[in-house]
Amino acid sequence: MKKMIYFFGKNMTEGNASMRMLLGGKGANLAEMASIGLPVPPGFTITTEVCAYFSKNNGVYPDGLKENVEENMKKLENVLRKNFGNKDNPLLVSVRSGAPASMPGMMDTILNLGLNDQTVKGLSKSTNNERFAYDAYRRFIQMYGDVVLHVEHKLFEKVLNSVKSERKIKFDIELNVDDLKRVVKLYKELVKEKTGKDFPEDVQIQLWGAIEAVFKSWNNERAIAYRKIEKIPQDWGTAVNVQSMVFGNMGNDSATGVAFTRNPSTGENYFYGEYLVNAQGEDVVAGIRTPQPININSKTDETQKTLEEIMPQLYKELESYRNILEKHYKDMQDVEFTIEKGKLWMLQTRNGKRTPQASIKIAINLFEEGLIDKKTVVLRVTTKDVDGMLHPMIDPKVKINVLAKGLPASPGAASGRIVFSAKDAVVRKKDENDLILVREETSPEDIVGMNLCNGILTARGGMTSHAAVVARGLGKPCVVGCSDLEIDFEKRIMKIKDRVLKDGDYITIDGSTGRVIEGNVNKVKPELKNEFQKLMEFTDEFKKLEIRANADTPNDAMIARNFGAKGIGLCRTEHMFFGEDRIEAMRYMILSSTSEERRKALEKILPMQREDFVGIFRAMDGYPVVIRTLDPPLHEFLPKEETQIKILASKMGISVDTLQQKIDSLKETNPMLGHRGCRLGISYPEITEMQARAIIEAACIVTREGKKVIPEIMIPLVGNIKELKLQKDLVVETMKKVFKEYGMEIKVLIGTMIELPRAALTAFEIAKEADFFSFGTNDLTQTTLGFSRDDVGPILRTYIDEKKILDNDPFQTLDQVGVGRLIKIAIEDAKKVNPEIEIGVCGEHGGDPASIEFFNKNGFDYVSCSPFRVPVARLAAAQSELRK
Amino acid sequence: MKKMIYFFGKNMTEGNASMRMLLGGKGANLAEMASIGLPVPPGFTITTEVCAYFSKNNGVYPDGLKENVEENMKKLENVLRKNFGNKDNPLLVSVRSGAPASMPGMMDTILNLGLNDQTVKGLSKSTNNERFAYDAYRRFIQMYGDVVLHVEHKLFEKVLNSVKSERKIKFDIELNVDDLKRVVKLYKELVKEKTGKDFPEDVQIQLWGAIEAVFKSWNNERAIAYRKIEKIPQDWGTAVNVQSMVFGNMGNDSATGVAFTRNPSTGENYFYGEYLVNAQGEDVVAGIRTPQPININSKTDETQKTLEEIMPQLYKELESYRNILEKHYKDMQDVEFTIEKGKLWMLQTRNGKRTPQASIKIAINLFEEGLIDKKTVVLRVTTKDVDGMLHPMIDPKVKINVLAKGLPASPGAASGRIVFSAKDAVVRKKDENDLILVREETSPEDIVGMNLCNGILTARGGMTSHAAVVARGLGKPCVVGCSDLEIDFEKRIMKIKDRVLKDGDYITIDGSTGRVIEGNVNKVKPELKNEFQKLMEFTDEFKKLEIRANADTPNDAMIARNFGAKGIGLCRTEHMFFGEDRIEAMRYMILSSTSEERRKALEKILPMQREDFVGIFRAMDGYPVVIRTLDPPLHEFLPKEETQIKILASKMGISVDTLQQKIDSLKETNPMLGHRGCRLGISYPEITEMQARAIIEAACIVTREGKKVIPEIMIPLVGNIKELKLQKDLVVETMKKVFKEYGMEIKVLIGTMIELPRAALTAFEIAKEADFFSFGTNDLTQTTLGFSRDDVGPILRTYIDEKKILDNDPFQTLDQVGVGRLIKIAIEDAKKVNPEIEIGVCGEHGGDPASIEFFNKNGFDYVSCSPFRVPVARLAAAQSELRK
Repeated sequence: MKKMIYFFGKNMTEGNASMRMLLGGKGANLAEMASIGLPVPPGFTITTEVCAYFSKNNGVYPDGLKENVEENMKKLENVLRKNFGNKDNPLLVSVRSGAPASMPGMMDTILNLGLNDQTVKGLSKSTNNERFAYDAYRRFIQMYGDVVLHVEHKLFEKVLNSVKSERKIKFDIELNVDDLKRVVKLYKELVKEKTGKDFPEDVQIQLWGAIEAVFKSWNNERAIAYRKIEKIPQDWGTAVNVQSMVFGNMGNDSATGVAFTRNPSTGENYFYGEYLVNAQGEDVVAGIRTPQPININSKTDETQKTLEEIMPQLYKELESYRNILEKHYKDMQDVEFTIEKGKLWMLQTRNGKRTPQASIKIAINLFEEGLIDKKTVVLRVTTKDVDGMLHPMIDPKVKINVLAKGLPASPGAASGRIVFSAKDAVVRKKDENDLILVREETSPEDIVGMNLCNGILTARGGMTSHAAVVARGLGKPCVVGCSDLEIDFEKRIMKIKDRVLKDGDYITIDGSTGRVIEGNVNKVKPELKNEFQKLMEFTDEFKKLEIRANADTPNDAMIARNFGAKGIGLCRTEHMFFGEDRIEAMRYMILSSTSEERRKALEKILPMQREDFVGIFRAMDGYPVVIRTLDPPLHEFLPKEETQIKILASKMGISVDTLQQKIDSLKETNPMLGHRGCRLGISYPEITEMQARAIIEAACIVTREGKKVIPEIMIPLVGNIKELKLQKDLVVETMKKVFKEYGMEIKVLIGTMIELPRAALTAFEIAKEADFFSFGTNDLTQTTLGFSRDDVGPILRTYIDEKKILDNDPFQTLDQVGVGRLIKIAIEDAKKVNPEIEIGVCGEHGGDPASIEFFNKNGFDYVSCSPFRVPVARLAAAQSELRK
Repeated sequence: MKKMIYFFGKNMTEGNASMRMLLGGKGANLAEMASIGLPVPPGFTITTEVCAYFSKNNGVYPDGLKENVEENMKKLENVLRKNFGNKDNPLLVSVRSGAPASMPGMMDTILNLGLNDQTVKGLSKSTNNERFAYDAYRRFIQMYGDVVLHVEHKLFEKVLNSVKSERKIKFDIELNVDDLKRVVKLYKELVKEKTGKDFPEDVQIQLWGAIEAVFKSWNNERAIAYRKIEKIPQDWGTAVNVQSMVFGNMGNDSATGVAFTRNPSTGENYFYGEYLVNAQGEDVVAGIRTPQPININSKTDETQKTLEEIMPQLYKELESYRNILEKHYKDMQDVEFTIEKGKLWMLQTRNGKRTPQASIKIAINLFEEGLIDKKTVVLRVTTKDVDGMLHPMIDPKVKINVLAKGLPASPGAASGRIVFSAKDAVVRKKDENDLILVREETSPEDIVGMNLCNGILTARGGMTSHAAVVARGLGKPCVVGCSDLEIDFEKRIMKIKDRVLKDGDYITIDGSTGRVIEGNVNKVKPELKNEFQKLMEFTDEFKKLEIRANADTPNDAMIARNFGAKGIGLCRTEHMFFGEDRIEAMRYMILSSTSEERRKALEKILPMQREDFVGIFRAMDGYPVVIRTLDPPLHEFLPKEETQIKILASKMGISVDTLQQKIDSLKETNPMLGHRGCRLGISYPEITEMQARAIIEAACIVTREGKKVIPEIMIPLVGNIKELKLQKDLVVETMKKVFKEYGMEIKVLIGTMIELPRAALTAFEIAKEADFFSFGTNDLTQTTLGFSRDDVGPILRTYIDEKKILDNDPFQTLDQVGVGRLIKIAIEDAKKVNPEIEIGVCGEHGGDPASIEFFNKNGFDYVSCSPFRVPVARLAAAQSELRK
C-alpha cells in the first residue's frame, strides 16, 4: 500500500483539495485550507484506501498502519507541544469520518478522545476549568460508549437524568463539578455492566477503538441506504481524520458555527450562517438547540443576536476567510468554525449543498463575477437542480389557511397525509401515495422513509439540521424548526396552537417560504427566473442533441415549446379517443362486425381528430410533430363496469350478453404482447386510413394559414418490414388523395417506433422503408428484459434493494448493456441502408440524464420527453456533449 | 427471354428431366421419357418463365411467343402428318398445366382441342367412328366451355341430362350419334346464351384460349391455397404442355390407367396400378368410375379383371417400361398410360407420392438393390415421412365395431366428428378439434377443409383419387371407395348398411387397413419396422447434432430413449407439482408468509421430487439429464374455482377472503413477463434449495446403484448474470452439503436457459457462469417478436393467410432473421469467453426440420424435442449435415 497517512497543519501539510478520493472531502479540504494559510487545528488523515482494505479484509489493517499512526501522533504532539495521554498537558483529538462524497451524519465521530481519569486532571489544570474538563470527559465517555462500545445512548441519558433529578435541576449546565464526576463514575459503571469490561483508560486503546468504529461505520445500515439513494459507490470507503481538539464550549468567549459563503436557499451573494455560543459543533448540526444568525443577512427574526454583533472582530476574520475560500474554490463553500477562548479555528470547508434555485443562481453569478466559465456553469448545475426548479409551488390564486411557519429548508410545495414516523411511511407507502413526514427532528435512520414522502416537516432544527440537508439532497420540499408544532407521538396527533391534526390528515408544506398549510392545496409550477433562462441559453451553445417533447394536446405542446422543445417527439393519438364525446364513436367502431360499419363510426371520429391535429400543428409552427397511429389494445376503450356495459348495449341496440361476449373476446392473457400497435392498423386498415386523413387534412389546413407544418407519421410496434410497408402504403395512398382534394403538397415523413427486439434486429430491412426511427424504450425494455411494467414493482424491489441484481429501475434509466446494445445494432444497421434516417427516442428514458448521455453518444438526433423534463434534457444533453 | 418452347417426340426432344423448374414436372418428364425411347405422344412445352412473365405483366405474353407456338405446331403437324384445324385429317391436342412441383388437380386442362364443326367430321372419317368423334366434340365443348369460357359445369350437365331423359336413357354410353349431335348443338346454344358469343370454331382461338386459361389457373384460389399448405413458392408459375391427343376411349381395345412402379402405400416392390377400359384418363383420376387393377398384386377383391389378363401383351410392354423408368429415375414412378386401339402410349411419369411407410421402405430397398447410396436414402426420405411413421394406429387391444371397409388410401388412424362438407369443416374447426370429412368424393376446392380435418373418408374413388393423393400429401389418414356408404347431404346423415350416423357423430377411420369404425377408438403409435431402424442408423452415420428429448417422467424418458434420444434436454420440474398429493404441499408453500413456513411445506415436497428424479436418472443411465428449476408463475398452482378455494381455506384454517386476497395478489397483467422463472428462486431461495437437494440426492442414490448419472441443472429466465450467479451459488452450496452427506461427488453442470433477448445480448457475461446454454426458443420468440403465444392465434391468421406478412407460424418454425440473429450473437459471444460451453435448444423448434437446419449450421451441440419427434429430428439433423 502507498502512503497511508497525510498530515496537515501550518507549513506541514502533505495533502490538498484534489485528493478527495484518497483523503475524503473533509480531509482534502482541511489540507487545502491549511496550505492556503487558514487557521486549521493540526491533525492527520488516514486514507480511504485503508478503509477499503479494512472492509475487504474483514477488519484487518494493512501492515505498517500502527507505526504510521504512532509517527503522526508524535508529529502532532511536537507541533502542539502536548502529549497524548500525558496527565499534565494532554493532547485531545477528534476522530471523524470523511468520505469522498458528502454523507452528512451518516457515519461516526468521536470527540475529546484522550481523556481518562489522569488526563482529565491535566485538562482541568491547563484550561483552568475543572467543570469544563469533567463535562468534556463525561461527553467523551457517553459518545465513545455509544459509538465504540455499543452501549445504548438512552442508557447514558437515563443516568444523566437520574443525577439531575436527584439534584433537582433541569439543565445540563446546572450540573457542578461534583455532579459531573458522579456522572463519569456512573457512566463507567454502566459501561462495565453492559460490556463486562472497564472503560478503556489507555488512550492508545481509545484511539484505535475510535478508528475502527469510524471504518466500520462506513458499512452501517443508514450509510449504505444513503449511498444507495445518492448513488455513491459502496466500495469507496471513508477516510479517518484525527485532529487536535478545539473547544467552542469553553465559556462565553467560545462558540461554534456553520456558515455558507452564499445563501444556500436562494443563492444570493452574501455570507450566511448560524452559530451557538459556548457549544460544541455537534450542537449546531444535530438541531437540538436552535442556533443564532451570524449576521443580519442570516436573521429570520428581529430578536436574534448575530455573531457580527457580539464578536465583531472575529466575525470580520471569519468573513475574510469566506472571501479567500470562494476565490480559492470558485464555488460556494459550507464551512464549520469554532471559536475557542477568542481564537477562530476553521474546522471544515466543502462545496455547500444548495437548493436548485441557489445552484443555478450561484453558477450564473460566479460566471458573471468572472470566477468560472460557461462550460463550468453548465457542468456544475445538476439536472436535479433544473428539475427542482420545476417543482410545484402553492397556487397563488388559491385561498389558503396557514397553520404555522417554520424555516424554509428545501424549496417547493408538497401535500400529503401526515405520518409520524419514517417506519410508518415505509409501511403506508404501499397503499398511499401522498405522505408528509412530521417529526420533532429527523435522524439518519429515517433516510429511507424520508425518501418515500412528498415532503418533511420538523418541529426543531435549523437550515443545516439533518432534515434540511437531507431534504435538499433529495430535492424534496422541507420545513424545519416549526416551533409551534407539538407532536404527541403516542396519540398520533399534532397540535399547532389550538388546532389538532391527526395521523392521516392532509397538510401542505411550502419549503420555499416555510409555511405549513391546512389540507391538500393546489400547486403550480414555479416561474423561471432570469438565471434559469441564461443557463438554458448556455446549454444550447454546447448541446448537439435536439430536445422534443411528448405532448398530446395543443396546451401541452405550448408548454413544451415554452420550455424550449424543438418539436413533438410523440403525440399519442389514443389519448384523444378517451373524451366523453369520442369514446362512444370509438366503441361503435370497435364493436363493428364489418369494415363498412367500422368506416361509418370512424367518419364520426375523423373531424375531431383533425381538430386535435390542427391545434397541435398551430402550436408547433415551424417544428416537427411526430404523430403515432393508434397503439393500445382495443379493449382499453370498452366499458368495464356493468352499468356502463348495460347503457352501451341499449344504445347500440344489442343484448348485454352479446356486448359482454365481444368485450370478453378482446381480453388477452398478455395484452402487452397482444393485438395492439400496427397490428390494429393491419387488421383494420380503415383506422389507419382515417388517422392518416385527419393528420394530412389538418396539415393542409394549418399550412394554408401560413404556418410551417412538419408532420411525421409514426407506425408503432413494427417487428417486420412488411408491417411497416403495408401501413405506409395506406398512409401514402391517403396522403395523395388528400393532397389532391386540397390542391397542395406538404413533405411528410413516415417512420416507425423501434420497440420490439425484432425491429432492432431487422433494422437493416425496416430502415429501407422508414424516414425515421423513434426508439420506444419503454416497450423495448419490457420485451428485452421480459419485465411487464405493470407487474414489475415487487420484482424490482427485490432486485434493486434486497439482492442488488440491478443498480437502477431499468424503466427509469436505460439498461445500456442489454437494451442499449439492441439500440446500437439497430442504428448501425439502419444507417448503412439509409444514411439520412432520423433517429430519436420517445420513452421515459428521453428525460433521464444518464440515458441522455447514452443517446448523445450513440448517434441520436433528438430525445423526446415530457414537457416538464425538457429543461433537464437540455442540460443533460449539453453536459454529455461537454463530457465527451 | 430465353427459349420459350421445348419440343418433345421421338428423336426430336429438346428438354430433359433436369429442367423441371423450366418445363414443370410433367413437361420435363415427357421430354425425358421421349429421349429414353418410351412411346410418348409428341408435343411441346411452353416454359414456366412464360407463365411468370404473363402473371407479372397482367396477362401479356412475351414477344415472339405467338410465332414460337406456330412453329412448334407446324413441327407437330409434320411429325404426325396431321393438320391443326384440317377438316380431313385434323390434329387434336391436349393443353395441360405442369408446375415444377406436383399440384394434382389444382390447375386446368383442356382435352380434344382442335375440334369444330368441320374437323369433327374429319375425325369421324379418320377414326371411322362417328359416335366417338361427336362424343369427343361434346366433351371438348363442355370442358372448354367450363374452363375457358366460364360457363358453369352443372349447366352442361343439365343439358346432357335433359337429352337423356327425353330419350329415356340412363348412361352417357347409351347416347347415339344423333343424340350427341343434339347435345353439341344445345351446348353451343348454351355458350352463346351465357357468353353472348359463339363457341369458337377457329382452332387458333381455341388454342390460345386454352393456353391463357392454364396460365391463369396458376393463380386460382385453390391453387394458391394448395401451394400455401405445401409451401410451394407462389412465383414459380406453371408450364403449358401442348400434346397430341391419344384416346383411351376409342372402344374396348382402348384403355387408360395410372400405375406406380412400386406399391405407394406399403412400398412393396411390385408394379401396382389401376385402369379403365374405354375411358379417358380423367375418368381414373377423378374417381368417378371405380377402376380395375392392372395385375394380381393390385387386386383388392377376387372379382376384379386385371389388365394383365385382358391385354397380356400390352401389359408386358407396360411392365418393361416400368423397369426402364425405375432404373432410369432411381425412384418409384407414378405413370399415366393410354392404350389407343391396341397401341400403348406413355403420357406421364413422375416420382410417385407414397405413404411414409412406403417412402422409407422404398428408399431402403433401392439402397439394397444398389440403385442409390446411403446419402441418397437419408436425403430422399422426408421428415414428414418419418413423422408419418409415428402416426397413431388403432389400439389392437381395444374391441372395435367395424362399420364398413374401403380402400386404405393414407395410413394412420384418426377419430373425429362427422362433417359432410369441407366448408362446414372450416366453420366448425373454430370450436371443434376433431373432425372427419365424409364425402362422396373430394375435389380440389375442398383442400382447405381437408387440411383442417383429422382424416378423410369417401364413398367413391380409388387409391389415386383426389382424396387419396391429397391425404397422403397431407399425411392424414384416409379411406376411399367405401361403397357401403350412402350419404344424404341434405339431411346431414349417412347410412352404412342399416346403421345411420348423423353430422357430429364420432367415427374412427383406419387409413392403413381401410376400416371405418364406430365411435372414438383408442389409438396407439405404430410399431416401427426394420427399414425404419435402418434409416435411423443411416442418419446417425451423417448427423453431428445430438438429439435429446423433453421429458418430465421416467416413462417419457424411456420412450425418448427408445426413439434414440441421447439424453433429456428439458425436464420441467413444475409438472411434478400438479399431482393430487403434491399440489396441496405446493399451495401451502406458495401461501406461506415466512421463509420458515415455506421451508416446512417444501420439506414435504422434497421426497416426492427426489423420487421423480431417481426414476428419470435410472431411465437415462449414461445420458445427460437437463433439469429446469421451477418456472411458471405461482398463481398457476392455486385453485381457481370457488369450491376449491373454500376447501383449501378451511384446510389451511384461514378465511376465504384472506385466501382470495392472496390469490388475487399473485395475479399479473402480463404473466408471461411476470414473477416466474429464476425470479421465483431469487424471491424464495428455499425453493431452489429444495429442488437442488432433490436433484443431487437422487443423483447420489442412482449413482450408488451403479448407474451413470449426468445431471445438468438449468436456471430459467435469466436476463442478468447476477441472477444466474445467485441461483448457482445456492445450488453449489446445497450440492456440497449433499455430497458430504452421501460421501460422494458427481459432476454436475449448471447452466441457464437463454429465453430473453437480454440474456442473448449479454451472453458474453452470462456464459462466464454457465456450463451450458439451452435456448428456450418459445419464450425467446415471444419476447423478440412481442407475440404472446396465448393470444397470437387471430393475429397469425391475419399475418400468414390474409396479409402474407409471415410465411410461417414463428412458434413452429424459428424466425431465423430476428430470433436467429439473437441466437447467433449469443453463441458467438458465449464461445469467446467460454469455448467449452454446451449449446442446446429446448423449445418447440427443437423438433422442426427447418429450425434444426439452422441449429445445425450455427454451432449447436444438441436439440431437444418431444419424444415422438426424436426420429424426425435425427433425420433432419442428418439431412442438414449432408446439405451443408
